[in-house]
Amino acid sequence: MTTIALDAMGGDHAPRTEVEGAILAARELDVRVLLVGNETALQQELSRHKHSGLPIEIVHAAEVITMHDSPSQAFRRKKESSLHVAARLVRDGKAEAMVSAGNTGAVMTVARFVLGLLPAVDRPALAVAFPNMKEKVSVILDVGANVDSKPEQLEQFAVMGEIYYRAIWGARRPRVALLSIGEEEAKGNELTREAAILLKQLPLNFTGNVEGRDVFRGNVDVIVCDGFIGNIALKISEGAVEHIRAMLKKAIKSSLASQLGYALSKRAFDDFRKRTDYSEYGGAPLLGVRGVTIIGHGRSNPNAIKNAIRVAAELCRSRVNEKIEQELSAIAAVPARG
Amino acid sequence: MTTIALDAMGGDHAPRTEVEGAILAARELDVRVLLVGNETALQQELSRHKHSGLPIEIVHAAEVITMHDSPSQAFRRKKESSLHVAARLVRDGKAEAMVSAGNTGAVMTVARFVLGLLPAVDRPALAVAFPNMKEKVSVILDVGANVDSKPEQLEQFAVMGEIYYRAIWGARRPRVALLSIGEEEAKGNELTREAAILLKQLPLNFTGNVEGRDVFRGNVDVIVCDGFIGNIALKISEGAVEHIRAMLKKAIKSSLASQLGYALSKRAFDDFRKRTDYSEYGGAPLLGVRGVTIIGHGRSNPNAIKNAIRVAAELCRSRVNEKIEQELSAIAAVPARG
Repeated sequence: MTTIALDAMGGDHAPRTEVEGAILAARELDVRVLLVGNETALQQELSRHKHSGLPIEIVHAAEVITMHDSPSQAFRRKKESSLHVAARLVRDGKAEAMVSAGNTGAVMTVARFVLGLLPAVDRPALAVAFPNMKEKVSVILDVGANVDSKPEQLEQFAVMGEIYYRAIWGARRPRVALLSIGEEEAKGNELTREAAILLKQLPLNFTGNVEGRDVFRGNVDVIVCDGFIGNIALKISEGAVEHIRAMLKKAIKSSLASQLGYALSKRAFDDFRKRTDYSEYGGAPLLGVRGVTIIGHGRSNPNAIKNAIRVAAELCRSRVNEKIEQELSAIAAVPARG
Repeated sequence: MTTIALDAMGGDHAPRTEVEGAILAARELDVRVLLVGNETALQQELSRHKHSGLPIEIVHAAEVITMHDSPSQAFRRKKESSLHVAARLVRDGKAEAMVSAGNTGAVMTVARFVLGLLPAVDRPALAVAFPNMKEKVSVILDVGANVDSKPEQLEQFAVMGEIYYRAIWGARRPRVALLSIGEEEAKGNELTREAAILLKQLPLNFTGNVEGRDVFRGNVDVIVCDGFIGNIALKISEGAVEHIRAMLKKAIKSSLASQLGYALSKRAFDDFRKRTDYSEYGGAPLLGVRGVTIIGHGRSNPNAIKNAIRVAAELCRSRVNEKIEQELSAIAAVPARG
């Protein structure tokens, strides 16, 4: 049974959502959940549900990091936050992974500095699964842990993303691509042109450049980019979905016929909404840190929290960090590269 | 009356769409259109419509650049293409602007090297209007003319984009922002942090950083970024729209009730489709070249061609290039910047 430390004070509706997610996870998955946060508040939330016999324990933490705290201040000044306590549980071997739907920047900072990086890793990468038109997902990394990456760092992102994809999405030889502005090798910027040379030499299924629209087409599984690009890509997609939903809603309200039409096609819309909601896909792992770390969206519902816990447990069971360390060390050992 | 050279062989359905667009433009706008392309084909298309008395003339061009031609080969080897001939008409003062819905890379290359850059301009920038939630547009530039831009080039993009926005979208003091990964000044990469310092000193309404999702929110008018980022942003949005449409279509087909619902709300969907179709917004100007150049989407319909011609004419009438040259020279003349 895998032990997961859950930052129970992180999300927009914490700790209620986190407690409900923990109960779902403890019931349905082979995991033990350490609920980290204000003991009184957590007891009270837990008491609203049947939970006797479930492998859930409370670990008290005196402070809470909010969305308004800057990551560096949260890291330095709130050492007794639920996030810090969760990270220390992982560092000290009392949990194998941590999950937080809190302040993304703070989670990245605390994970990076409390847990530290794997020895072979230069920089961590945040990986997000985008649903695609083939009804699968494409994983994009980095989506914001790093900016101004070097070609060697994109190379490491490729290796880490590929291992994550294999662990969670099951492909044996995931197709790995570089996000650029044209499929031809000469297209791109200095970074992508140099990174392509390194990626071609890796023992993985590198298929070359893809463009922005390929993110949704499902013709590749893992898409590698600098964190500045990846973060903008992620936020633009979220923005586009938000925009289109708002426009449709408005258009539908414009006539009685279309309102009736909407009522009749409501199930279709609900399906659509669910498929475009990234939070359903189990959170974003911060790859490269010692100890599995999953960052959920602040808006996560209990089901999303459960999914994040499931992904955390699967990454532990498939020994993702051992594999990352092994594969990166093997690459570094190859003489005369480049 | 403004004279526009229209590359009539460029788009996916050329020359039919271009001829129809030219007729709409000549009828509705105060413009004279030079239809550039194969004379026989253009005569034949024209003969399908009433056009006597309209200010439309054919200028023969022997070659055609296709979507498969590489921009540099198209530029060097197809000097008699409709695109080259159109560009030379502008260079030689026989037209004030050119419009093409052809191979974007080829149009950028031919415009840049046949027309040349304005003296004060370092690099040209391609500007695209994104429809936003306030039912206006936000202009993003550069979306692909340049990669690995320098801070000083982003500064020039800001000035050019602001002038374009004023000319076409009418705001007196458009809000100009820098595309980044967080609103705080410290967020971003090396390029955006350095560019922010320059933008703050410009005599324009610079409002700071925006994130990817702000592209659709309508809280700023002009969004400045490197061409690699902008191209990915554009393609991701197009991809998201395409993906969402496909998902909705599928969801709607899934039951008889939702099919009936769709039939009833069809007008709402048609509105939605139109609002998310960038081609309706009049094409993308390549700012910074001598002579106004508008690039349309290959999928442009006659209405989109007409809109591109309208934008071309408005940019000429508002003397966009004179203003760009003036404002950039004034900035360059300020001593001790940075």
